[in-house]
Amino acid sequence: MTGKIRLFESFQQATYPLGGHAKRNVQVLLDALEKIEGSVEGDTYGNGKLIEDFQSKIAEYLGKETAIFFPSGTMAQQIALRVWSDRKGIKRVAYHPLAHLEIHEEDGLKELHQIETVLLCAKNRIVRLEDVLNIQEEVACILLELPQREIGGQLPAYEELVAISAHCREKGIKLHLDGARLMEILPYYQKSAAEVCQLFDSVYMSFYKGVGGIAGAILAGDGDFTKEARVWKHRYGGELISLYPYIISADHYFEQRRSKMGQYYEQAQELAALYNRCHRVKTVPEVPVSNMFHVHVELPIEQVEAALLSVQQDTGIGLTPYVKQYDQTICYYEVGIGDRYAQVPKAEIEKAFQLLDQRLRENDLS
Amino acid sequence: MTGKIRLFESFQQATYPLGGHAKRNVQVLLDALEKIEGSVEGDTYGNGKLIEDFQSKIAEYLGKETAIFFPSGTMAQQIALRVWSDRKGIKRVAYHPLAHLEIHEEDGLKELHQIETVLLCAKNRIVRLEDVLNIQEEVACILLELPQREIGGQLPAYEELVAISAHCREKGIKLHLDGARLMEILPYYQKSAAEVCQLFDSVYMSFYKGVGGIAGAILAGDGDFTKEARVWKHRYGGELISLYPYIISADHYFEQRRSKMGQYYEQAQELAALYNRCHRVKTVPEVPVSNMFHVHVELPIEQVEAALLSVQQDTGIGLTPYVKQYDQTICYYEVGIGDRYAQVPKAEIEKAFQLLDQRLRENDLS
Repeated sequence: MTGKIRLFESFQQATYPLGGHAKRNVQVLLDALEKIEGSVEGDTYGNGKLIEDFQSKIAEYLGKETAIFFPSGTMAQQIALRVWSDRKGIKRVAYHPLAHLEIHEEDGLKELHQIETVLLCAKNRIVRLEDVLNIQEEVACILLELPQREIGGQLPAYEELVAISAHCREKGIKLHLDGARLMEILPYYQKSAAEVCQLFDSVYMSFYKGVGGIAGAILAGDGDFTKEARVWKHRYGGELISLYPYIISADHYFEQRRSKMGQYYEQAQELAALYNRCHRVKTVPEVPVSNMFHVHVELPIEQVEAALLSVQQDTGIGLTPYVKQYDQTICYYEVGIGDRYAQVPKAEIEKAFQLLDQRLRENDLS
Repeated sequence: MTGKIRLFESFQQATYPLGGHAKRNVQVLLDALEKIEGSVEGDTYGNGKLIEDFQSKIAEYLGKETAIFFPSGTMAQQIALRVWSDRKGIKRVAYHPLAHLEIHEEDGLKELHQIETVLLCAKNRIVRLEDVLNIQEEVACILLELPQREIGGQLPAYEELVAISAHCREKGIKLHLDGARLMEILPYYQKSAAEVCQLFDSVYMSFYKGVGGIAGAILAGDGDFTKEARVWKHRYGGELISLYPYIISADHYFEQRRSKMGQYYEQAQELAALYNRCHRVKTVPEVPVSNMFHVHVELPIEQVEAALLSVQQDTGIGLTPYVKQYDQTICYYEVGIGDRYAQVPKAEIEKAFQLLDQRLRENDLS
């Protein structure tokens, strides 16, 4: 068995995994359905009380006129960019080089819409106002992902967002929010979702990340925008006869966790501090600005895997199922806080981090 | 309240609706989950035992090498036609003028893929061998829908299917089956699903029509085909983190109803015969070849609505929630048999049809 598989399995068997809410098993659906009567009517091709009520509720939460429930964020965001591209008559949009659309969607945006993309900055940092000011070609839309997931969930200062938004409005560039983890950033910004979203023309938010539902997304904007987006949803085959299993679970976990984002954020800071005390470990960002961060370790990946495996096996604390190479000298993994962290005895966590520090030092000497 | 709304409401309130399985409410999901343990692991981005087992099972049922579960048939079929178009380097496919892709998908195939379509025949009849022989332009793929839903669910003779398939293989034209209602035609053909499907290069089947699940579809073919289709599924945003609510219900109702298709077919014939005894009523097809048919009435639509409303209100038998105009003199609606029909006392049905005949005659005289 390779080190990678042993690490993965030791995480699966850990008594106390530190990240996430719970196992993604059928119980997640059963819990969401517990108080739902069988007589509740399902949605039908995007219509019906169940879907319409949820869409209205989230539209209001986001401070937008209308919202549409989508089976996935991939579908929702490609469609948002297509609608804005059509509106402006320009098939070009700009985003971060590690945007979900650029690296996780098999080039759907380009293959399905022939939309060109401008990459706004270097991979290892967030988009700044000056990147937006420096765009050379005309673009229909700029997509900002908050937090920027692939670099540990970093965020610009709120004032910089305001400045980017003002610039886009002045230039007639549509601004779209990849808010896959929108709720998770509100405690840091100390803003409501609607306050953040009013800086953007359209917003996507996910219901299976911090919210912890089964799948599904909301795309919100003004009525003309969502009307057009719904036609594309139909074209994509996203206007399913019924989406209620996702909507019911999205609503259930949204209500259950909307008030917990501040807790996750504080716990992420606490956990990052524990990591930053370990030998050759640095979190990115150093102080988390949401419920997530990346753990960077400046040691050979095999040594890091061995150290993590040892800690997971000896303490039952689950730190990570995997480690990836970041560059030639650093390896990394992602941590995201959910409901589980609060259930783990603090003393056990402390013990695990003492052992991790020790194992990383040993490895370094060996 | 207009006649249309009154008709719809009287159907909703009917004690004995004759078509379908049951109300499409949350109970459909609860029943499917009844014997599922919460500890069953969900699928993750198309991987995991739950989705892989179901895909293998249906691939075997269809006699194909591999199968992929999709959130919708719209997505699955556009992708099938795209894969075959790419394979042949020809962006043109042929199908019936009332194909789902042509009339129910907001032109997704054309808008997302720029694939041209050749319409094979007149709207009011099924595709024949000679239509296929007469195609003037080169096409990558022909899509056949069995049964042809929009004309009452008609079918060609099996020998004609065999001849179409042989011709396509000889000419190197891919043949795709829109088998939204594939299981529903097997009793008429007296063939297994695999026997029918071996005439086709790729097959789509739905899990919420005759099967009666919540949503979802299977696309099946050889390994190269489904591998490519899966990349497109990802591009479309159809590779959801979890599809298990649909897969569990698809599997549950597939097992529950796979042996009932013969019963639905016989009951459709019985019900069509009752309709054909009524004044100015003709079913299409006259003798159903699946669980479905259309009811054509050669009378003004308002008179037909009034007669149906009266029958539904007086007998509690639900015949239809709507009537549509077919042409200048004929109006129509669709009937599809599911579990409900068997639950209705025969005497009540007889009574309703005697009354329907009487009301249609009265209307005609008035």
